[in-house]
Amino acid sequence: MFAFNPTPVSIPPKNAGLMLRQPKGLPVYIQPLNPLQFILRAAEIYPDKTALVHPDVEYPVHYSFSIWCQRIQNLAYALIQAGIKPGDRVAIIAPNSYVLHAHHGVLAAQAVLCLINTRLKPSEVAYILDHSGSSIILVDHEYLHLLPPNVKVPVVISKDTGRPGDPYEEFLSNGRAFSKERGWSGLEYPADESAPAVLCYTISGTTGRPKGVVTTLRGSYLAAIGNAYESRIHFESTYLWILPMFHAAGWTFPWANVFGFATQITMRTVDYPTIWKHFLNTEITHYCGAPTVQIGIVNDPAAKPLPRPITAIIAGAAPTANLIGALEARGIQPIHVYGLTQYGPFTRNYAQPSWAALSVQERSKMMARQGHSFATAQDVRVVYQPTSSSDTDSELVDVPRDGKTIGEIYFRDPEATRKAFRGGSFNSGDLATMSRDGSVSVVDRSKDIIISGGENASSLAIEQELASHPDIMEVSVVARNHIKWGERPHAFVILKSQAISKWEGRHDVFSVELKAYAKVRLPGFACPEWVQIVKELPKTSTGKILKTDLRKIVAKL
Amino acid sequence: MFAFNPTPVSIPPKNAGLMLRQPKGLPVYIQPLNPLQFILRAAEIYPDKTALVHPDVEYPVHYSFSIWCQRIQNLAYALIQAGIKPGDRVAIIAPNSYVLHAHHGVLAAQAVLCLINTRLKPSEVAYILDHSGSSIILVDHEYLHLLPPNVKVPVVISKDTGRPGDPYEEFLSNGRAFSKERGWSGLEYPADESAPAVLCYTISGTTGRPKGVVTTLRGSYLAAIGNAYESRIHFESTYLWILPMFHAAGWTFPWANVFGFATQITMRTVDYPTIWKHFLNTEITHYCGAPTVQIGIVNDPAAKPLPRPITAIIAGAAPTANLIGALEARGIQPIHVYGLTQYGPFTRNYAQPSWAALSVQERSKMMARQGHSFATAQDVRVVYQPTSSSDTDSELVDVPRDGKTIGEIYFRDPEATRKAFRGGSFNSGDLATMSRDGSVSVVDRSKDIIISGGENASSLAIEQELASHPDIMEVSVVARNHIKWGERPHAFVILKSQAISKWEGRHDVFSVELKAYAKVRLPGFACPEWVQIVKELPKTSTGKILKTDLRKIVAKL
Repeated sequence: MFAFNPTPVSIPPKNAGLMLRQPKGLPVYIQPLNPLQFILRAAEIYPDKTALVHPDVEYPVHYSFSIWCQRIQNLAYALIQAGIKPGDRVAIIAPNSYVLHAHHGVLAAQAVLCLINTRLKPSEVAYILDHSGSSIILVDHEYLHLLPPNVKVPVVISKDTGRPGDPYEEFLSNGRAFSKERGWSGLEYPADESAPAVLCYTISGTTGRPKGVVTTLRGSYLAAIGNAYESRIHFESTYLWILPMFHAAGWTFPWANVFGFATQITMRTVDYPTIWKHFLNTEITHYCGAPTVQIGIVNDPAAKPLPRPITAIIAGAAPTANLIGALEARGIQPIHVYGLTQYGPFTRNYAQPSWAALSVQERSKMMARQGHSFATAQDVRVVYQPTSSSDTDSELVDVPRDGKTIGEIYFRDPEATRKAFRGGSFNSGDLATMSRDGSVSVVDRSKDIIISGGENASSLAIEQELASHPDIMEVSVVARNHIKWGERPHAFVILKSQAISKWEGRHDVFSVELKAYAKVRLPGFACPEWVQIVKELPKTSTGKILKTDLRKIVAKL
Repeated sequence: MFAFNPTPVSIPPKNAGLMLRQPKGLPVYIQPLNPLQFILRAAEIYPDKTALVHPDVEYPVHYSFSIWCQRIQNLAYALIQAGIKPGDRVAIIAPNSYVLHAHHGVLAAQAVLCLINTRLKPSEVAYILDHSGSSIILVDHEYLHLLPPNVKVPVVISKDTGRPGDPYEEFLSNGRAFSKERGWSGLEYPADESAPAVLCYTISGTTGRPKGVVTTLRGSYLAAIGNAYESRIHFESTYLWILPMFHAAGWTFPWANVFGFATQITMRTVDYPTIWKHFLNTEITHYCGAPTVQIGIVNDPAAKPLPRPITAIIAGAAPTANLIGALEARGIQPIHVYGLTQYGPFTRNYAQPSWAALSVQERSKMMARQGHSFATAQDVRVVYQPTSSSDTDSELVDVPRDGKTIGEIYFRDPEATRKAFRGGSFNSGDLATMSRDGSVSVVDRSKDIIISGGENASSLAIEQELASHPDIMEVSVVARNHIKWGERPHAFVILKSQAISKWEGRHDVFSVELKAYAKVRLPGFACPEWVQIVKELPKTSTGKILKTDLRKIVAKL
């Protein structure tokens, strides 16, 4: 490990206890579920194991579980000293390393972690800070420009150095001094395990205002264990943080990795050459990422066959057969999970032994299904409401249905909450089918369906087929008005780098070829009527393709 | 797989649903935790995978998850038809296969599973049936003699055939007919996740009456997930049932294995040659057993190096260094866990990387520690009460302490419950130390300590050392009155079969040799004053050595 000494206040006192006070008034056989338990346990069992490494920066740091745990305690006391009360919101705008600390430290102060996407506009950040009612803001020095000019709450700047002189280290020092060495026993678990844990805002490309969604401590605890179990994260695992944590609270992996005693590696700037450096040289075993990031990884010039297999957890959209094949060819084993921006993964595509006999192409199609719920989640259902009114409380009928899971309510939006939970289930907004074996397949977001000649064409299904063309790196399909058929698919295509010169000046020939390619694979109403080669696709700050923007483009054609 | 067709009522109808009704009145984001969820999920995701095999009997059976799940549903309806209401106790006296069904089917009827040890005397069984207030008795045809002659509640006999004509199959048929194909949606989860799940009675060698201890649904769910995670039980696992399930509800493995989609193999009669047949020929990956059983396994003449590693989960007493070495030499990887008869395992000895550099002897000593709590359990503590009164509600002080965990209360014994939970923690009755790293080591049951010359000698520590003698298979040490020292250790020894003839007629020479062996390894006050070679040791019905009986023997000397 590179030379680095943590600040003196990061060193726990001799014989430091690692237990919080149990809340009073509960039955003796109940301990409220809380993902904060994991870091205390890791610090107790494996104090000297490397918990996290932040290597690719000017001032690299690494912390053992014992030292990291003390820093988390310091953060909790510092927040309390700053006036944070149980249930208060603590906003954070920072790269993954700072956010990883906050995932544990904010819970230790019994506060709610409000994760803010660093790719938002200042006006959106201002809206979220106001709507969340955040009482303090943790911010990385590079994101100060996102703060409103008249910010009225305390701001704690981190320069991401981990060294004396960094304002964040000062903040921690003050917290340690304030605690008067009461340690963990001076803190307490909230008695209510359904108390809020994390507040995320969904923005994903819609024109509406950001919506705040809250997870509970119990839901986060169960989901984190579910993710650790499904990903087989254990003591010997090393997890590389590619996924930004503001994306659905890092899919619960900030806690899941600690539950499993894994070592976590964070990057300040996520780029493909650095990812491949870690894949090849630092014994990475796990990472998470949306398909668009996975596509970038497998197509990077630095990509090489791996010395040992790495498990990739994929969510955000279904991986194409093409992507699955490309990952496997490089020694990356994909696990396809599904969830919502609000919670992270709660279903998984469970591989069947019979798939071993299938071709990669056929097997990949099976792997593209969203699958079944985790054991720690409620059953996912595909439902419809029998009445025409969309907000009655009538029972839901089980085909087709919306997904539901534990541990979430909408924040400060009673009307949206009522609608989301209508009929007693949480409405994901995804359209899906359920196979005979109970496996769920997301067909599309309702607004992404293409109604072509009276038929419902799934833009996802069309993309799946087109993506298998050998010259295509990424593809997105939207509905475009058609005088005869009502709507017809319009495909936006990014070519692989080695195919760009091949089709240079002959995009019309490529278009003819791709349409012919589609014709043998798709029903007529689902074949693209238009093919457009582009250099890049508009994406949300969490890496999802902005189909609203693509629809605006075709509306003008 | 051998030829076998399950009874027609075991076949689920086409498109059978696999969801129970959610209880009303809970917040939409809460699903009550219940280990019954696991079998429904397994039947949904891997319907055709072999869930359980019962091969070594006159009428072997094997069931897929789908068929087993239907049989569990039939059992639930059959119990309801027999008048069982939520919270009623269902007693079972049977070998593991019948009990495995009941672990799920009784919960599906919202009833409480009362597990009865098949090795008890009829009078003890009668006491338990009466005290538990069991409303129905499930019994294997070979254990009918354990029933009281005047039994007043319905009795469901299984002949362990799985074939038409077996009274248990009739019972299931009636249940299926009674359900009128309402299926799983005709059943409901209890709204209260703290409702009782399993009622076990502890008998372990004390002179008192059996004490009934209850686990909750929530506690069982969390403990089962903890065990599956710690043992790394997954789809590809095959678990061999050596441990009797009446022993602390099979340490939650009846559910943990289903959570992990493992295949389970049950034996009607557990004998070492059959165990080795399975170890060598049926791709076993996991089993549980107390040290006494593990000693029998490694010393069986059929023992051979394994073609692939098997994980042995050990609890009930600490494994000796000798046993750990013997297991590892045969390719069996021990996981040492600790719990109480009441719950099954909730702490684990977590291996440290630094142990790799130790000798087997030194490493085994580290592995004999009971370790740290599972993530899904409360922190284990080693405490004492500062006041002399043993039943005040004063706070507990943290050194030395008693273990505590989630999910248990005493049944129908308010005074015992109050004492067990005094100070807000559950009192295990074990004496332990806590190492600097927070790892717990059980020193002894309080009554097993030998007070020799004013020193406290741990009988367990003495046994650990003596067991390393190459001629010793098993050893137990108790206090014997001594005119000068108050008490002195008396060792009962079983020789390895190959050493019996060596010491034939020379037991006194062996005694001298063993005392000399002890002298270089133990403090003087802990060396055995007496050594007695025996053919067998008295054991409880769960395989624990009956030290009370040994103490009676030495009291007469």
